[in-house]
Amino acid sequence: MKIALAQLNYHIGNFESNTAKIIEHIKKARNSGADLIVFAELCVCGYPSRDFLEFDEFIDLCESSAQKIAEECHGIACIIGLPTPNHRTEGKDLNNSAYFIEEGKVIAVANKALLPNYDIFDEYRYFEPSNEFSCIEFKGHRIALTICEDLWNTFENPLYVTRPMDILIQQKPDVMINIAASPFAYNHDEERIEILSDNARRYQLPLLYVNHVGAQTELIFDGGSLVFDNTGALIDELPYFEESVAYYTLDDKSKLSFDHPTTMKAEKLSDIEQIHKAIILGIKDYFHKSGFKQAILGLSGGIDSAVVCALAAEALGPKNVMAVLLPSRFSSDHSIKDAEDLVNNLGCLSETVAIKNITEAFENTLSPQFKGLPFNIAEENIQSRSRAVVLMAMCNKFGYILLNTSNKSEAAVGYGTLYGDMCGGISVIGDVYKTQVFELARHINRDKEIIPENSIIKPPSAELRPDQKDTDSLPEYDILDKILKFYVEDRRSSGEIIKMGYDENTVRRVIRLVNLAEHKRYQTPPILRVSPKAFGMGRRMPIVGKYLS
Amino acid sequence: MKIALAQLNYHIGNFESNTAKIIEHIKKARNSGADLIVFAELCVCGYPSRDFLEFDEFIDLCESSAQKIAEECHGIACIIGLPTPNHRTEGKDLNNSAYFIEEGKVIAVANKALLPNYDIFDEYRYFEPSNEFSCIEFKGHRIALTICEDLWNTFENPLYVTRPMDILIQQKPDVMINIAASPFAYNHDEERIEILSDNARRYQLPLLYVNHVGAQTELIFDGGSLVFDNTGALIDELPYFEESVAYYTLDDKSKLSFDHPTTMKAEKLSDIEQIHKAIILGIKDYFHKSGFKQAILGLSGGIDSAVVCALAAEALGPKNVMAVLLPSRFSSDHSIKDAEDLVNNLGCLSETVAIKNITEAFENTLSPQFKGLPFNIAEENIQSRSRAVVLMAMCNKFGYILLNTSNKSEAAVGYGTLYGDMCGGISVIGDVYKTQVFELARHINRDKEIIPENSIIKPPSAELRPDQKDTDSLPEYDILDKILKFYVEDRRSSGEIIKMGYDENTVRRVIRLVNLAEHKRYQTPPILRVSPKAFGMGRRMPIVGKYLS
Repeated sequence: MKIALAQLNYHIGNFESNTAKIIEHIKKARNSGADLIVFAELCVCGYPSRDFLEFDEFIDLCESSAQKIAEECHGIACIIGLPTPNHRTEGKDLNNSAYFIEEGKVIAVANKALLPNYDIFDEYRYFEPSNEFSCIEFKGHRIALTICEDLWNTFENPLYVTRPMDILIQQKPDVMINIAASPFAYNHDEERIEILSDNARRYQLPLLYVNHVGAQTELIFDGGSLVFDNTGALIDELPYFEESVAYYTLDDKSKLSFDHPTTMKAEKLSDIEQIHKAIILGIKDYFHKSGFKQAILGLSGGIDSAVVCALAAEALGPKNVMAVLLPSRFSSDHSIKDAEDLVNNLGCLSETVAIKNITEAFENTLSPQFKGLPFNIAEENIQSRSRAVVLMAMCNKFGYILLNTSNKSEAAVGYGTLYGDMCGGISVIGDVYKTQVFELARHINRDKEIIPENSIIKPPSAELRPDQKDTDSLPEYDILDKILKFYVEDRRSSGEIIKMGYDENTVRRVIRLVNLAEHKRYQTPPILRVSPKAFGMGRRMPIVGKYLS
Repeated sequence: MKIALAQLNYHIGNFESNTAKIIEHIKKARNSGADLIVFAELCVCGYPSRDFLEFDEFIDLCESSAQKIAEECHGIACIIGLPTPNHRTEGKDLNNSAYFIEEGKVIAVANKALLPNYDIFDEYRYFEPSNEFSCIEFKGHRIALTICEDLWNTFENPLYVTRPMDILIQQKPDVMINIAASPFAYNHDEERIEILSDNARRYQLPLLYVNHVGAQTELIFDGGSLVFDNTGALIDELPYFEESVAYYTLDDKSKLSFDHPTTMKAEKLSDIEQIHKAIILGIKDYFHKSGFKQAILGLSGGIDSAVVCALAAEALGPKNVMAVLLPSRFSSDHSIKDAEDLVNNLGCLSETVAIKNITEAFENTLSPQFKGLPFNIAEENIQSRSRAVVLMAMCNKFGYILLNTSNKSEAAVGYGTLYGDMCGGISVIGDVYKTQVFELARHINRDKEIIPENSIIKPPSAELRPDQKDTDSLPEYDILDKILKFYVEDRRSSGEIIKMGYDENTVRRVIRLVNLAEHKRYQTPPILRVSPKAFGMGRRMPIVGKYLS
């Protein structure tokens, strides 16, 4: 039996393009002699479709798309994923299903049993978990077909009370197929390999695993579909961050072989290389799938906006990136020079809009109200917000999307102005700590200087008052980022972090800042997710609540 | 057995104040001769605690608070709700539990089985559903204790595959107690009574039901705790929107009696009366629980900001409300007059900040970029955003919280400026359709004219260009709001709405506007929820997705 794995980039709700893409690959695979082609979880509608799933019309379109796909399935079978109505008399309205289609007909349906409902996942919101499992007979083989999380119930620390493969294995399958929608995080590829390998080894079956590739707003799917032999050894790995199709032959002794060169890498990409590729895909798909071409951003001369500008130029082409210098009376000469150097290095579009007259107009207009009161955060924020108004006016006039340039460290401690530099359609590096932003800058400069060295080495500053430095109000970033990771990602308490040896005052101050910024983060743009715990849909904190630190 | 029901206002994560409040009421109830006092679901930590529940420290504090409460439980028993570690070897980390405490000891634990995970609920994110149920013996009675949703598995259309009471009833209880955290929506009180009455009738048991009261950011709990006899008849109803404690006696024949005057109303509050009370509580608790006193808002002379101003003055006191008139060159004289009249009627604080010089500064500064291009939405939005910058500067200078004044109809169709009039710490009427805003204005004026008649009767306008009217680009609000309700709340398709008799072009245009505004709504403040489907955490739509209409 020759099996094709199709790792493709879908668009949520775009039934026309998803269906066309699936049918195109069915035809190609048939021409290549495949007996079966496997697509990813919920490929018909895209993942995550969120509350689209609550519209009957949406579910109907999933089914009619599946019927169109079935009509093309002659001389080849396929596995597709889609939501289907739950026909039981009780429970939620839908199942997260896989159709096995042969000769124009759905000959088997597998429903997902383990529904992830943590971090960014909300599957229990929509789907009823399955409790019935049957292997599928095809071409003399017996396939144990499961959906993503169904294989993720770790053996040491089970998250769910059932394990579908424990039931399926009793029916003596000779191969496992798992269709998935597993989003990227810089450490997630290794975790996937480990857990899936563990399944192949325990059940002593070869395993073919197909993932999505492509970004859906903040979620980036990295592909990296996997093939294991029945000892749990990884025998092939599809490319990361790109569409790919590969063919495998399963012989009568349940042995998998393939004749294409493996894309499995001897050396893994580093975290920063992965983050770089993920963000490029994230920007590309955000613009492409929302029907926009051109980005705008404010360029300060600092490292964050420089890195975002370079990433945008790479993703969209430099001529689709408008970098706007918005100097105020506190902007240093070197900042303007650094920003101009970057624009020249990238060849992107650029404008300079000095905001002095605007901020003066605000200050003059507010002088009766602010009389006698010293310059403080109110005037600092007026600068940041004036820049945002200028950038948004250019968006409204010319059809750009504004890129947000906040990094994760800033977003964490609220070191940003709501409705000012926290604006944007999408946050590009909002899940990248400042210390990682430096690494990313070095990586972007790996072949030649794109980001001016000066932007990398000068002390970070918001330049909202004279001689301001980030370290005036924040600890050094290497300390800050470690504390943030313990608190935000590992959910450790201040007491635990202090016990690890961090300065008590620093820890308490940092955590207090994170907590105080929840109301700001509630209103920030979606953040391209590259870590296991990003701000946004995966982290849901109370706004009005008493925080512990 | 004398039972006290304690319907109280908790603060998420504020263990000190929640514990003190619980203990205070235990003491009072004991002095009143009660044998048992019943508090609401998860009262120890507040509801919804969201990802606070993922911090071990938080769970430890729940347990230590429960121990403090237990120490006070002598001569009286109590039921409290809290999250507890799941001690089974598999499944999620926590249970949503009720402790039955007697003489200083937890003598029984009931865990919630049915975990709501729809709309604003995310309980499956944190909790493992229970599958063990035991009645509690106390003072010669046998209590079937369940938690909120455990009684909500409707008999006609079951959402869950189990029903805890079907198991508990086999143990022959003589009374049901249900502790809940059931948020307000204007039609929810009737639904609650119907479902709970249905349980009492089916199981032929009296039922005591205790709810939260008070707001937690956008969620407003309305109290209205309920008592039913064993025929399903509602025999008492605690007040709505305020704390309350009431006492009931259960005799040996499972008959409930009480000697206080019932607070059950012969006539139900109208939807608008309920919404009014809910919003007042929502504003009060948002400020009180976040430690702020003073609100600011922009007053346009239109009905939306007038209604918000009146509500804020009622909730916080007029001297804690700063209303800022921000006229532009397009503001009509009557708008300024209407705004001034409102300020005088309310006695709130007021400032006038004309934005002409500011918008001119933006336009002059951008004149090289915008040269030769006509005035359009870019300049319109500059006005709205300039106002936001002024209001936020006053927040930063004086410590106000900005109130957002968008209504639900505007929020739905994106008729608002992101980072402009869509700013604010909390959206006061963002879940109130424009047609309801008119009703609310009339209700506020029920005794005397507070909101100037002219603000109510004049055609709505954003006044961002000469002679602009809302109806230039939107259908009449009575049509618009109906289409919106079908699409947003009932999740009907455009085809279905057109079939009901609405104009095809209008329906398609409205739904298209709703879909195009998803990216804006992603960045808006939390919205006080008064309907069964509010924008915000209860409605989770893709941003980059292909919408059907």
